[in-house]
Amino acid sequence: MYKTRVTELFGIEHPIIQGGMIWVAGWKLAVAVAEGGGLGLIGAGSMTPAILREHVRKAKAARPGGGWGVNLPIFGSVAADTLAVLLEEGVKVIFTSGGSPKLYTRMFKDAGMTVAHVTSTPTLAVKCEDAGVDAVVVEGFEAGGHNGRDELTTMVLVPQAVDAVKVPVIAAGGIYDGRGMAAALAMGAAGVQIGTRFVATAESSGHEAFKKAVVDASPTGTFLVLRKLIPVRVIKNEWAARMMKAEARGADDDELLEILGAKRNRLGMFEGDVKEGELEIGQAAGAVRDIPSATDLVRRIALECEETLARLNPTHR
Amino acid sequence: MYKTRVTELFGIEHPIIQGGMIWVAGWKLAVAVAEGGGLGLIGAGSMTPAILREHVRKAKAARPGGGWGVNLPIFGSVAADTLAVLLEEGVKVIFTSGGSPKLYTRMFKDAGMTVAHVTSTPTLAVKCEDAGVDAVVVEGFEAGGHNGRDELTTMVLVPQAVDAVKVPVIAAGGIYDGRGMAAALAMGAAGVQIGTRFVATAESSGHEAFKKAVVDASPTGTFLVLRKLIPVRVIKNEWAARMMKAEARGADDDELLEILGAKRNRLGMFEGDVKEGELEIGQAAGAVRDIPSATDLVRRIALECEETLARLNPTHR
Repeated sequence: MYKTRVTELFGIEHPIIQGGMIWVAGWKLAVAVAEGGGLGLIGAGSMTPAILREHVRKAKAARPGGGWGVNLPIFGSVAADTLAVLLEEGVKVIFTSGGSPKLYTRMFKDAGMTVAHVTSTPTLAVKCEDAGVDAVVVEGFEAGGHNGRDELTTMVLVPQAVDAVKVPVIAAGGIYDGRGMAAALAMGAAGVQIGTRFVATAESSGHEAFKKAVVDASPTGTFLVLRKLIPVRVIKNEWAARMMKAEARGADDDELLEILGAKRNRLGMFEGDVKEGELEIGQAAGAVRDIPSATDLVRRIALECEETLARLNPTHR
Repeated sequence: MYKTRVTELFGIEHPIIQGGMIWVAGWKLAVAVAEGGGLGLIGAGSMTPAILREHVRKAKAARPGGGWGVNLPIFGSVAADTLAVLLEEGVKVIFTSGGSPKLYTRMFKDAGMTVAHVTSTPTLAVKCEDAGVDAVVVEGFEAGGHNGRDELTTMVLVPQAVDAVKVPVIAAGGIYDGRGMAAALAMGAAGVQIGTRFVATAESSGHEAFKKAVVDASPTGTFLVLRKLIPVRVIKNEWAARMMKAEARGADDDELLEILGAKRNRLGMFEGDVKEGELEIGQAAGAVRDIPSATDLVRRIALECEETLARLNPTHR
């Protein structure tokens, strides 16, 4: 057990948070992570209010003592029905992302929730703190899915955010094992948020073909597309290759939006069309080689982190 | 003193290597780093054979016992006169970069040199090992100057390279203090190569205006330009802004080359035109706030690394 301000804040055993990814992170994944001693997040971004309510209720029934929460992408604003579910069901932990932390932090705090916001620069981390969050997640360029425009990597982002804010910093982007977790703690993070590695777990609700695509991905198998519109890191499949080509020749926004089309992330991540779907994933996909249970994975990462820190101990070498 | 395979290989006190940057890394910087217990590299990339010979001779005179070497960018091939200087002057340590490790590794090894090659993917790290290098430097997307096309960050690159090769791995890209160094060691690196942080030192031969631009840079003050031709990370100044605009609208190679022009890195880094020059620098520039002596800087980073590892020691918390 490695105690940090993050384990205290969320009442968890290990400072490991599972990213609340769309199409992948339902109540089963969140609960499995909680069973391993981490914090599991339900990804509300791909759920209707009714489905979100169902997932929250199932997580509550399985883990009334906690260890789980909800990730809520903002992107402009959140539907009133979705906000109502979170408040009515008494969700205790919420991670917001992809919009202004000013918009909902106060409301959630007033409802007694513990609130973190995901951001991508040290300056924005300060804005999160000013908005009243309990913790800030800083996510680097290597992360999967939607991504900051400034392309700061985890390595430069984490220590600068740690120096910039007083609230605990959670490192995200490119962390997939206990060595990466130990690295994040060395840079001053009080915990890690891990997404990509949890896509390929038994309890992930991603399509099996998506999980297999992650396991099969090479170290150079992802790319950040749609940089001009809304940057997103994906597996380089047939669809992504078309998008990369169009971007390289300076295609205009209309053409890019046409290539993007509608519901393409659902098509890839949930329906399993690994050629034409949008498979949101981080650079860490290249290092993923198995599909363990998420409970075991949390324990494996925590143990490897402990072993790494012990190996580096200056007094024992 | 933190002993690793890198301290043994190069006979140095701390596993800290100063990147051999063009226009910045002359004999004064390399020797100052060696005095601090690290490995200093003379940057041959911006030197004529005669100037390189002068720098090597001065380093040899100041530090006959070693602690220094030469960084040699390959980019296709190296002029025979430059190779002759390295062999005739008996340079003992060489770091090659920007080309195939197959081209010169055998020749340098046969001349009794210790050879490392700088690369940007785990697969290419294996190719370096196959070519017979003594160590491999893996450099992430956050690094300054020329950069890999696959955009892998230090965080995902280091542990995957460590798993892929048997030779020692040196982590580069985004490391600027002892926390980042500890993080690299946690990921399995046997040492770090630090560039950007050493630009802003007393012994750096970069123009004072360039050093000041590094100290003044914000965390989001750099960008990777020329991605289609030869990716290079620079400070976002007036020239870089023109380049970014042209790239965003899909300008063709001819236009990009015209905007690049000739000798633009010399103009910025050596002559100090911080508006129109090409100021090669890593994302870590945002965290650089002072211009210490390089000798003190090596000691400061090594000490902070020790303190970080001690703080993380699982048996003492």
